[in-house]
Amino acid sequence: MRQKESAGKGKITEEMKQVARNEGVSEEQIRRGIANGEIVITKNKNHEIQRVCGIGKGLSTKINSNIGSSPVHMNIGEEIEKLIVSEKFGADTVMDLSIGHILDKVRKEVIRESRIPVGTVPIYQVGYEISKKRKNIEDMKIDDILDVIQRQAEEGVDFMTVHCGVTQTSLERMEKEKRLLNIVSRGGSMLVVWMKKNRKENPMFEHYDKILAIAREYDVTLSLGDGFRPGSVCDSSDRGQFQELLLLGELAQRAWEKGVQVMIEGPGHIPLNEIQMNVQMQKSVCHNAPFYVLGPVVTDIAPGYDHITSAIGGTLAAYFGADFLCYVTPSEHLKLPSIEDVKEGVIATKIAAHAADLAKGNQQAWERDRKMGLARKNLDWEKQIKLSLDPEKSRTYRKLSESYDRDFCSMCGEYCAIKQLNQVL
Amino acid sequence: MRQKESAGKGKITEEMKQVARNEGVSEEQIRRGIANGEIVITKNKNHEIQRVCGIGKGLSTKINSNIGSSPVHMNIGEEIEKLIVSEKFGADTVMDLSIGHILDKVRKEVIRESRIPVGTVPIYQVGYEISKKRKNIEDMKIDDILDVIQRQAEEGVDFMTVHCGVTQTSLERMEKEKRLLNIVSRGGSMLVVWMKKNRKENPMFEHYDKILAIAREYDVTLSLGDGFRPGSVCDSSDRGQFQELLLLGELAQRAWEKGVQVMIEGPGHIPLNEIQMNVQMQKSVCHNAPFYVLGPVVTDIAPGYDHITSAIGGTLAAYFGADFLCYVTPSEHLKLPSIEDVKEGVIATKIAAHAADLAKGNQQAWERDRKMGLARKNLDWEKQIKLSLDPEKSRTYRKLSESYDRDFCSMCGEYCAIKQLNQVL
Repeated sequence: MRQKESAGKGKITEEMKQVARNEGVSEEQIRRGIANGEIVITKNKNHEIQRVCGIGKGLSTKINSNIGSSPVHMNIGEEIEKLIVSEKFGADTVMDLSIGHILDKVRKEVIRESRIPVGTVPIYQVGYEISKKRKNIEDMKIDDILDVIQRQAEEGVDFMTVHCGVTQTSLERMEKEKRLLNIVSRGGSMLVVWMKKNRKENPMFEHYDKILAIAREYDVTLSLGDGFRPGSVCDSSDRGQFQELLLLGELAQRAWEKGVQVMIEGPGHIPLNEIQMNVQMQKSVCHNAPFYVLGPVVTDIAPGYDHITSAIGGTLAAYFGADFLCYVTPSEHLKLPSIEDVKEGVIATKIAAHAADLAKGNQQAWERDRKMGLARKNLDWEKQIKLSLDPEKSRTYRKLSESYDRDFCSMCGEYCAIKQLNQVL
Repeated sequence: MRQKESAGKGKITEEMKQVARNEGVSEEQIRRGIANGEIVITKNKNHEIQRVCGIGKGLSTKINSNIGSSPVHMNIGEEIEKLIVSEKFGADTVMDLSIGHILDKVRKEVIRESRIPVGTVPIYQVGYEISKKRKNIEDMKIDDILDVIQRQAEEGVDFMTVHCGVTQTSLERMEKEKRLLNIVSRGGSMLVVWMKKNRKENPMFEHYDKILAIAREYDVTLSLGDGFRPGSVCDSSDRGQFQELLLLGELAQRAWEKGVQVMIEGPGHIPLNEIQMNVQMQKSVCHNAPFYVLGPVVTDIAPGYDHITSAIGGTLAAYFGADFLCYVTPSEHLKLPSIEDVKEGVIATKIAAHAADLAKGNQQAWERDRKMGLARKNLDWEKQIKLSLDPEKSRTYRKLSESYDRDFCSMCGEYCAIKQLNQVL
């Protein structure tokens, strides 16, 4: 039985038990959350997952790492290395966004090697295969799309981004806005080109029920993509973006009616003062479906540092209720991320998730900070290193200090406040 | 005439004109802000400054970089290099926190070479000189402190941190809290050791009027230090911290009465959900004196990445009204920062300041993001690189991309959403 169906019938699955244990909450809380759509467990019935992941209301904030080849950069070993680094530094899920002729091989290898749930964006493969046949995106048929979704679902993909809310209605709203940057979503742009050239409705919207049928068959969680997410802070929170969000809320309800688990994807480039409103809007119109945000990136001017711009936005989004943060790496807007970029992206996003969990009062999060504070009080450097998010970097920095073998650090030397105070207080 | 005295008498100084020009606001707004204590211009009458800096209400968020030697790591050239890197990447001020036998030389060189205001923490020098005489901190006399403040003021230091709110009253409140980490402020800890061993009141509080007299003489802005800032999120926003803040508000009023400009320093390690309250509390009890915050760091568990934990907290603090962000580098809690750490710290803090300015509706900030959005729409890579906070890193990343000579990047290749859409919209 599928997670949602089981939850609806009052049955607690093995995966629900694992999530409850990991989170330190009751099994009933997880079951109820899945039944009413507020929690998802991203797990394909064909995929064995060691670290089962629950995403949604009342759970710790989860983070996703995007990996995958590009037509101009293809190396399976490198993508597997990115998967390993992602898992090591705390990614809860990984999305394989590969294009290029090795894409099937990469995905199969990622699904086999991963200990965490794997997501994809099937339309990338559809678009790539069409171009291989020397056809254009407007030649795409619904069966091309369903066929890829079916193949990927069979292979064990746990969650899939589908841009079903990119409709003529959303497009009309967006065009009337006269945006600075129209569309920056790769999948969204493919569909809009198709819709413009064919003068027809988005086939993924028209045939949504068929997509739901496949998702239900394999228990794939659908992640309803935001094709109209703003690509500049100048375009944020506009009518095009929210028109799509309203439709995503309707599509979420239709998924639930068919026993399919669903998340909603969110922006994007959003200035800090609009983040709370964006999260509350999503929660309201999507009836508390889990919110999966990319960033948000809070300024456009820091390419090379977008792991930081998005950690800022992500912390605030998660604090206000976003459940799942998609990482952004330092290479965003510039190139495909390297292994080092992946590490930087995962750690920055982990910081955002953890800082939000602290702010929301998550007890497991507080316990970790309390231990670090105690290690600092005791000037116990080994423990500080072990408790840190990146023990290797902490150790390297500590070793670079001229006081490595002393009980203080090279910032203050003997003038260490903690050391001084421990003597008189 | 001093800035504050001039402003009070309705006179607009040359520095006020420069600040008004830089910020795009009226000269009268600057004058009024300085007169009522909401704005400071950190400039010693003996220091020529090329980039005059206004800090406070209605102005863009400013950032400070801390440089300076440690007794275990001393190299004047390296500190000057840190100054240059700080200015290059956008620091508005620099604080020289040097200790060790080269401290006088470093400070003189920094004051001579800097094009931006220079700050210090005089008690560091006092403590270092006492230890050189093989005496203990409890042997410190008020004249030792006043002598250093006088010498540094004469040399041209523009602003000084003085921990005058570290009193027996604040200490009593803090001790009753039973903190995890008592005091992490270097200057604060020196004074508490002195107070405990001598069983007397803080001499910098007792002789505050003498400090004010020197500050007034040279037009040094006082930065009232927060000796009881929390060093762990577990200790944040407690009675010890706020007791000191109440006293700092009183000390600010006393400074204004003597024609001395003043800022208030703030924490520290603060979870995200308490940042707004902390800023509002400071604004309220200190009658809108500029707020100068260190971080805030929003979690303790990320040594090696505290430029990120503090960029998160700093953005939110500035959005809610903090005026001046002290950078934190990746080496915080581990070692003295290297030149590369200084660069990382300045850029992360610049991102925080800029993101907050966007969120507050600063027009100059919006103009910069709008230009970047336009460059992205036009796939104008050269302009994107030039508009970025770190053009060198942007260019390096772009060059690492296999599509350097093409109009797309190696993330999506020909599937670039912007490129596709520009053809149909």
